[in-house]
Amino acid sequence: MTLKQEPLPSKTQLIDAQKQLALWVHDTPVLTSTYINDLIGAEVFFKCEQLQRMGAFKMRGAAKALLDLSMGQRAMGVVTHSSGNFGQALALAAKMMDVTAYIVMPDQTPQVKKSAVRDYGAQVTECASTIDARIAATQLIASKTGATILHPSNDLSVIIGHATAAMELLDCIDGLDHIVAPVGGGGLLAGTALACHHFGHQCTCLGAEPIEVNDAFRSLQSGKIESNAQTNTIADGLKTQLGDVNFPIIQALVQRIDCVSETEIIHAMRLIYERMKLVVEPSSAVALAALVKHPERFQGKRVGVILSGGNVDLSDLPF
Amino acid sequence: MTLKQEPLPSKTQLIDAQKQLALWVHDTPVLTSTYINDLIGAEVFFKCEQLQRMGAFKMRGAAKALLDLSMGQRAMGVVTHSSGNFGQALALAAKMMDVTAYIVMPDQTPQVKKSAVRDYGAQVTECASTIDARIAATQLIASKTGATILHPSNDLSVIIGHATAAMELLDCIDGLDHIVAPVGGGGLLAGTALACHHFGHQCTCLGAEPIEVNDAFRSLQSGKIESNAQTNTIADGLKTQLGDVNFPIIQALVQRIDCVSETEIIHAMRLIYERMKLVVEPSSAVALAALVKHPERFQGKRVGVILSGGNVDLSDLPF
Repeated sequence: MTLKQEPLPSKTQLIDAQKQLALWVHDTPVLTSTYINDLIGAEVFFKCEQLQRMGAFKMRGAAKALLDLSMGQRAMGVVTHSSGNFGQALALAAKMMDVTAYIVMPDQTPQVKKSAVRDYGAQVTECASTIDARIAATQLIASKTGATILHPSNDLSVIIGHATAAMELLDCIDGLDHIVAPVGGGGLLAGTALACHHFGHQCTCLGAEPIEVNDAFRSLQSGKIESNAQTNTIADGLKTQLGDVNFPIIQALVQRIDCVSETEIIHAMRLIYERMKLVVEPSSAVALAALVKHPERFQGKRVGVILSGGNVDLSDLPF
Repeated sequence: MTLKQEPLPSKTQLIDAQKQLALWVHDTPVLTSTYINDLIGAEVFFKCEQLQRMGAFKMRGAAKALLDLSMGQRAMGVVTHSSGNFGQALALAAKMMDVTAYIVMPDQTPQVKKSAVRDYGAQVTECASTIDARIAATQLIASKTGATILHPSNDLSVIIGHATAAMELLDCIDGLDHIVAPVGGGGLLAGTALACHHFGHQCTCLGAEPIEVNDAFRSLQSGKIESNAQTNTIADGLKTQLGDVNFPIIQALVQRIDCVSETEIIHAMRLIYERMKLVVEPSSAVALAALVKHPERFQGKRVGVILSGGNVDLSDLPF
């Protein structure tokens, strides 16, 4: 696969995105925990995107992607395939902006997630669980309705939208040394890296990834996009594949990706529930797991952590 | 029982308490949920005391009680009996202020709670689970060591300390019509009522209580302190008995107490987890349960809700 060689999104593009999104997304709180600071030996600042509208940072990218459509495109609607947070985010953002949204969801998606998307007013189309079936169903809807296909993470508007979480964190907390974000499809990490690059002064961007699906870690090592042979992780939001739009940004701007085990993710998740009193989904715990695993790498630093979302089945917590 | 007829704590006493406590407690965030606003038909502002140090508002009263000791008393330490948040709060506040704390805990208290108190550096004494055994053990320690006995809720310093949560909420949100607080021992409700009285303009204070332990509701009706025949509620923080220091304040300043069932508490608790992504203990859900039960009473209003704490056994959630 040849990577797209585009110039990096500019500082102005990010500033414009932040201004545009101010109407549509929350400037989420930044919280701290003395216990966790002592545990890591660092000052850790948690950007709480689980408190974002619909419960995840995906709201930012979805809203930005809609704002970047032409008037003509808006009239025809948008379509995406997602079993997770991006489907809900696009449904809600589209409802708020009065755009028709079509969401393709695998038929094995839990009923509660399909209901959430329908409750936001989007039209749900079910398909078989394979990636080929999802893409085919999406393309069919696009060709029938003229709806614009939006990708949950491998899209520049989405990436720029996601960047605004780290921009707010940098606005709010001075002198950060690092911001750590989880990496799945790569949209959040690429956006966070852009924010650090343009607004971070000395602040570097780090990724955190489950060992079980560490395609991004391996891609940084090999210099080309790698795939996951399996997706056996509790961090269901991070099973998705790195893309050719976000990988070049990650390659250019992310200092390092740390990998963590399933046990380490669950332990960090429990810390966030017990010590911070916050409901997060497993994907959100991956960045803290990286800090807990390698405290020596963060000793004495000021570290931002993006808590990515809180949409979790409470009757199925791993503790 | 003859009630203590004392003048109400003054506005100046509350202002002084807020200044004194600024060093020792967090000014906790106020969060909102569009979903819950729509559900109630009101604007609801949640004061997040589960994000307070040690996870509950009790930190405020414990710290204020220590600040009100004379130098001579401080040197001799403090003692209380508690199986819950006040024990942890006093242990932590005492550690921060370099005071010796003795905490009497029933021997059936979960190990994790005893460990939390010991981790904060307090000396734990175990006793039988009866209230008589608890009082006897507390008095024995006081007479042996000279430590000052502190009551978790029926103490004016504690009540004034607790008042600072609602003071911060009123500082932060203009034009509140009501603040609703859960009532167990009555310290939080009395403090909240004092804050509304002195700083609330048109804001009235309401209580919320589990039907199963509604001694405060019945006490307001009868005009004298009533007891609970049993304490069969999931809201373990609210099993305690109303006292003769806080009841006169509640009687003078609380407009009404709404009672809610166990099912209503669990439903409200689930709403807070699922929609607000916040970990709270069952007692914290009682005030929201009152809003959900009687939305017509809050229609079109601006309502503050005190989320009292988040110390809960995550492996034993009721959903």
